[in-house]
Amino acid sequence: MSKDKRQMRLGAILMEAGHHVAAWRHPRAEAHRVTDVRFYQELAQLAERGKMDLVFFADTLGVPNYSSFFDHNITIRLEPLTLLAALSAVTRHIGLAATATTTYNEPFHIARLFSSLDHISGGRVGWNVVTSALADESLNFGRDTHMAHAKRYDRAKEFVEVVTGLWDSWEDDAFLIDQAQGRFADSGKLHTLNHQGEHFAVRGPLNISRSPQGYPVIIQAGSSEEGQELAAQTAEVVFTAQPTLARAQHFYASLKGKLAAYGRAEDELLIMPGVFPIIGRTAQEAQSKLDELQELIHPAVGLDVLSRKLGHDISGYPLDEPLPDLPESNGDKSRNHLLLDMARQEGLTLRQLYMRVAGSRGHQTVVGTPEQVADHLEEWFVQHGADGFNVMAPYLPGGLEDFVNLVIPELQRRGLFRTEYEGATLREHLGLSRPANRHAR
Amino acid sequence: MSKDKRQMRLGAILMEAGHHVAAWRHPRAEAHRVTDVRFYQELAQLAERGKMDLVFFADTLGVPNYSSFFDHNITIRLEPLTLLAALSAVTRHIGLAATATTTYNEPFHIARLFSSLDHISGGRVGWNVVTSALADESLNFGRDTHMAHAKRYDRAKEFVEVVTGLWDSWEDDAFLIDQAQGRFADSGKLHTLNHQGEHFAVRGPLNISRSPQGYPVIIQAGSSEEGQELAAQTAEVVFTAQPTLARAQHFYASLKGKLAAYGRAEDELLIMPGVFPIIGRTAQEAQSKLDELQELIHPAVGLDVLSRKLGHDISGYPLDEPLPDLPESNGDKSRNHLLLDMARQEGLTLRQLYMRVAGSRGHQTVVGTPEQVADHLEEWFVQHGADGFNVMAPYLPGGLEDFVNLVIPELQRRGLFRTEYEGATLREHLGLSRPANRHAR
Repeated sequence: MSKDKRQMRLGAILMEAGHHVAAWRHPRAEAHRVTDVRFYQELAQLAERGKMDLVFFADTLGVPNYSSFFDHNITIRLEPLTLLAALSAVTRHIGLAATATTTYNEPFHIARLFSSLDHISGGRVGWNVVTSALADESLNFGRDTHMAHAKRYDRAKEFVEVVTGLWDSWEDDAFLIDQAQGRFADSGKLHTLNHQGEHFAVRGPLNISRSPQGYPVIIQAGSSEEGQELAAQTAEVVFTAQPTLARAQHFYASLKGKLAAYGRAEDELLIMPGVFPIIGRTAQEAQSKLDELQELIHPAVGLDVLSRKLGHDISGYPLDEPLPDLPESNGDKSRNHLLLDMARQEGLTLRQLYMRVAGSRGHQTVVGTPEQVADHLEEWFVQHGADGFNVMAPYLPGGLEDFVNLVIPELQRRGLFRTEYEGATLREHLGLSRPANRHAR
Repeated sequence: MSKDKRQMRLGAILMEAGHHVAAWRHPRAEAHRVTDVRFYQELAQLAERGKMDLVFFADTLGVPNYSSFFDHNITIRLEPLTLLAALSAVTRHIGLAATATTTYNEPFHIARLFSSLDHISGGRVGWNVVTSALADESLNFGRDTHMAHAKRYDRAKEFVEVVTGLWDSWEDDAFLIDQAQGRFADSGKLHTLNHQGEHFAVRGPLNISRSPQGYPVIIQAGSSEEGQELAAQTAEVVFTAQPTLARAQHFYASLKGKLAAYGRAEDELLIMPGVFPIIGRTAQEAQSKLDELQELIHPAVGLDVLSRKLGHDISGYPLDEPLPDLPESNGDKSRNHLLLDMARQEGLTLRQLYMRVAGSRGHQTVVGTPEQVADHLEEWFVQHGADGFNVMAPYLPGGLEDFVNLVIPELQRRGLFRTEYEGATLREHLGLSRPANRHAR
């Protein structure tokens, strides 16, 4: 196998007890450790032992407010940025990424937090830029109604401009630290942003030096038309939910095709669909594992998941009849349409639909032996459906242990994944260049 | 010495290269490590070796925007909350505290960040509640003018109400984690805040469980009349700058005297003045150390410090003439008045005034042998000027090494300071009780 062979990127999405909606009820999950930092430190060390590119934490700034939701689900979590800092102290190589919304944050805070994390981790941080899809968040930030979809994307675009502008406040070589002359910095290499836009007025400069990666890696996850345009303009990694290879190939070609309009090459943006792997010593054992998990889904949970995905409370509708007609929602439009199309095309009842999506939450489910899982990933990777994958282990730590111990060695044998970290920063793991400061001569 | 003897509390204020304004130019400072997380990890471990109660990081959300300020000072720093998380991973006992302003933050974010830090650190976190005194901060958050002093305190009061309300979202025993029945939590022990106030509308609940300390320890530092009232109502620790024992005693008696009106006992609030210790093997050596530092102050820096403290740019005034009359500013009034009184009473020129305050930044300076420093602290402690002290080492790590290696053993010999940690949480170190959840029956 050639050293120059293209290799896939692998992230581990760490979601409390695991990615399956009933994960916390599984004997190999550790639900009592949901706010125990050592649990996540052990998971990050496990992913690092597997030479994975990054661990990732999704986030929301609130939770849907039905009592059945609180009763049956994990609705608490550590705040991801403080968590990433705690993980950085016990890992040396692995990338550390998390979501921070542009809808209910201020760009000065976010620029500073991620820059600080990039310093603290030695250049291993990524920021998943999202607009808030959860209307409940608005109520925690003084708003009566959720911001409309188009306005959220407008705001997100300007938010990223402000943040990257703040990250360029100081040129990389601005600090003299000349004790004898008393000159700490060369203020000629300091640039005050003076941003005045539609959504933000931010003077700057940022009160932290440019970070090891220049900019933390910019990740995005919106698959709507607006989301894809924002990604083509600003994202370096795109997380996406693609249920089939054909859809993944279509998304891959479409998004890569948009890059040229922004003066960017295809390898400047990596597309990483989620994968939900159920791994057994035999295909039969893997299927039994999935069945065991599916049986743990509480019906109230299944309906809640569906309600949130559709942007409507459907808990009152009959479980064993087809999905009713629903008005347009203010949520993630692309995801709503995917679901509605699936239900209509296959004539699914509500129960069948929630069994389909509540478990893996809409991502591709791969059930089989380590070789079969590797075959699947290789096919998507080679057939231009993906540059890599986000591994959404069904339960934690067990599901990630299976992937690291069984699937990664198989990918390594095939030359599809690294056997050692080659670089020090997340950008280096991902093959992304370090952006120059816009002001540097 | 009796086990029940009252003992002092000791915090270490960690300020980049050190607390003296010219610290970074000192040979025992490490200015090139200003954004190196390991530098702060080593300092926290040093303070923990000294059995100190806490380390503390001050913060501002921006910097005054003059080029001479950037040229001659350290104007960059790690963001303190991500830093505290990174420190928690390499320490086991010491408290971890930082400033977060109520003026340019949202209470939901702050409640969540500090709760998460309290979980991550196993109950070792403190929040220094401030109102922003630096007008430059407003310009980073979409405001043309700085919020007025009284309005900032109004907002701060409501901010703390919202944050503590969110911290009580979940009762301590709300989590069942019953895998067999599929019940993760008892939503009957969940309380939605539904706050609607003058400054904030926050529904809640917080998406994290109640933290080990119930509430992170609440610290305050404002010494104005409004600041003292807010502290009497809500603070558990007060940081203060008191230049003489007489003033410290007056402040101590005044603030403790306000507690009864809020139904609080005197030992529910600890008063910790800053102390700026210069330690030598002889008094002469200590004085030489201070002189060496003072000579490193760049005149441009001295004037900048004074301008900021007074809330006026005085860089155009003659250095060797008395302080001119200045209009009322929108900054920290109590501190302005302290300075103006000192200058007038002693007839100081601008140069003399900045030499007086730029070095130690207005805190009590103690220059002497370890025994002399211990004598000073004992006197203030025994004479009801303080419940403990914030050690503001002139340069780091050297100045803190001197304090930990030389002064703390002397305080321990006198029975004035612990020789081992007795408890696990910051509240336990400080002798503060864990607040009950307001909703618990």
